[in-house]
Amino acid sequence: MELETSPLALPFPDMPMIDGVTLRVARARYKNWDRADLTFAELAEGTSVAGVFTKSACASSEVELGRAGVKQGCARALVVNAGNSNAFTGYRGREAVEAIMDQVSAALGCPREEVFVSSTGVIGVPLPKDKARGGVAAALEAEPCGWEDAANAIGTTDTFAKGAGASAMVGDTRVELAGIIKGSGMIAPDMATMLGYIFTDADIAPAFLQEALERANAQTFSCITVDGDTSTSDTVMVFATGKAGNTRIESWDSPGADAFAAALAEVCRNLGQLVVRDGEGAQKFITIRVLGAASDDSARRVGLAIANSPLVKTAIAGEDANWGRVVMAVGKAGEPADRDKLSIAFGGIWTARNGVPVEDYNEAPVAAHLKGEEIDIAVDLGLGEGRATVWTCDLTHGYIAINGDYRS
Amino acid sequence: MELETSPLALPFPDMPMIDGVTLRVARARYKNWDRADLTFAELAEGTSVAGVFTKSACASSEVELGRAGVKQGCARALVVNAGNSNAFTGYRGREAVEAIMDQVSAALGCPREEVFVSSTGVIGVPLPKDKARGGVAAALEAEPCGWEDAANAIGTTDTFAKGAGASAMVGDTRVELAGIIKGSGMIAPDMATMLGYIFTDADIAPAFLQEALERANAQTFSCITVDGDTSTSDTVMVFATGKAGNTRIESWDSPGADAFAAALAEVCRNLGQLVVRDGEGAQKFITIRVLGAASDDSARRVGLAIANSPLVKTAIAGEDANWGRVVMAVGKAGEPADRDKLSIAFGGIWTARNGVPVEDYNEAPVAAHLKGEEIDIAVDLGLGEGRATVWTCDLTHGYIAINGDYRS
Repeated sequence: MELETSPLALPFPDMPMIDGVTLRVARARYKNWDRADLTFAELAEGTSVAGVFTKSACASSEVELGRAGVKQGCARALVVNAGNSNAFTGYRGREAVEAIMDQVSAALGCPREEVFVSSTGVIGVPLPKDKARGGVAAALEAEPCGWEDAANAIGTTDTFAKGAGASAMVGDTRVELAGIIKGSGMIAPDMATMLGYIFTDADIAPAFLQEALERANAQTFSCITVDGDTSTSDTVMVFATGKAGNTRIESWDSPGADAFAAALAEVCRNLGQLVVRDGEGAQKFITIRVLGAASDDSARRVGLAIANSPLVKTAIAGEDANWGRVVMAVGKAGEPADRDKLSIAFGGIWTARNGVPVEDYNEAPVAAHLKGEEIDIAVDLGLGEGRATVWTCDLTHGYIAINGDYRS
Repeated sequence: MELETSPLALPFPDMPMIDGVTLRVARARYKNWDRADLTFAELAEGTSVAGVFTKSACASSEVELGRAGVKQGCARALVVNAGNSNAFTGYRGREAVEAIMDQVSAALGCPREEVFVSSTGVIGVPLPKDKARGGVAAALEAEPCGWEDAANAIGTTDTFAKGAGASAMVGDTRVELAGIIKGSGMIAPDMATMLGYIFTDADIAPAFLQEALERANAQTFSCITVDGDTSTSDTVMVFATGKAGNTRIESWDSPGADAFAAALAEVCRNLGQLVVRDGEGAQKFITIRVLGAASDDSARRVGLAIANSPLVKTAIAGEDANWGRVVMAVGKAGEPADRDKLSIAFGGIWTARNGVPVEDYNEAPVAAHLKGEEIDIAVDLGLGEGRATVWTCDLTHGYIAINGDYRS
């Protein structure tokens, strides 16, 4: 099935190459297609690494080995396979990942645990070792490529290439960040979503890099959802080559630590939003702001209950400001809420306040807002200071068609 | 929008009238339609009542008042309004419910708290008091009707009338049970689903009736889901008129207590399954059996994670035995699970065992099973003795059309 580009797609941004990062792609032909499906990033010696991974109890071998590799803190290479997630494939799947790690570590002369592998695609089919070996060999010989080529090569049901960059001043040194991501279905929070990779030339200790990533993740990837379905392979990693020559960031007290963390969070937020914009069948991008909650975490869970409600998502698809369905979703969230303090707005216009419909509610501007592509929902629980913002898309016939109208 | 009858519909069963119950319906015209939308059940003096209600934090006044009424244990009347849920309507909504209770208690000469009211339909519009008053007055004058008329009158987006009956021997006395239910969307567990009413001529103490209902609810209504969206109005009540003349059931030690509880659970299970069979857009009825879980409750939560996964539900709609999506749903459930002990079967045929695909897996009989209307999924977690069965339906274009293609 040929998928049309999402109507919410954004153009791929101009991003500078990162010193210490070389990208190459190759055709491993994991599926019967003629496109690059193996991405290889070679990283300078001494590159720091951090990662957040799916919390699924059925995580893939790639995730298990990646989680172990992040603990030692250094990376020399990243290999991403598209078309086969290699999840739920037992020892045969694990052998395939280890074979790729061996092949790359031999070629680069680095310890095996500094090679990171990700795979995305169908669950339950062992990654074919021969195709992987051929793909890695081809990638090692290939000409370097740019970000957009790599972003395309890691995609599966994605309909457009997704990237985001930023820069930050660390002391007197300007450092660059560039990230790419894939994902459009099986997207849910409580994890590091899908496959996302961020590269920077900043010099950063692995422990701080991990802390900054986890902090950014909590407010970005953990706040997006397409369908509430958490993947077995979700991975976001950051690689810091140190080539910018800044004074090494060791902790939050180091010069530039806050600036770098802010830039990292910006890249994470933009990448996460791009995944929502490529949500399967998405026609509208929905921002849900929850305030007045008992805590930030409670606000996030209320926001996700709204964002994951099929009735709310279909109402938005139908351009219907059906705030009653938002009430329903708040009610079922299992978080502190008081019906008689709850207020709801669409596009900045309050439709219900303190548990009752607004008396002189003018539907016309709300209806006009609902006709747009960018929908804002605000919910004030009226209880405390907790707040969160969550991003999702609508639920349309497109989602059913992509996931139900054909055999995968 | 005119909805076609669900392809999974069952014919309305023959059920005897229950001694001590008189049903009447009337046209309150809560919406611009020409159909009975107010149902009135008059109950004999001394009728015991039990109820389970939504756990939504945004429950309607009907639910609040019903919960309070159940505590005193007696019922003389039930009024059900269809077309307006009266939820999230503040003091004006509450006044409308109290007005109905006053009107009925004056007509029957009974305490107000023995009158129970339920409403179902759009959220956020106060129930119009004048229409309710007219409807109740008409119902008080109307000729008695049968179960199917009442089952039709409580429905909203339902496409067929739903009822289930049973009988049990209590000592030497045969007692009858008859139940009706409505619901097809905004159906999720962790509650007593939708509006369901069960009547029996058995003589039963309210405290035991409540305990038997809660026990049945945990294995029936709490194990069904259509879309994971919990309503603000969900209610299931049981009324026992005592007219059968059996020795009153006071506790689990009373003669016939187990037989009555089994009959009640059977009615609850059948009513719950009928709601799934009328799931919005449903084309297939899905039974998910989870075994080998750490506990029964854990098994239920794993089952519901599978049943609520849009990717699993669309795969079934597409007649695709995509067991990888079942793995995903198990992984995200947040319950104890071990990837390498997990086994999955469709239609009784194991497709994956102990974390790997079955080697000589023959897809043909599985594909044939998926083409049917009744789909069986079995999941063995391989950990313990916990088990549960959960029922749901597939996710089709019909659900999107019903909930998204028009303004409600």
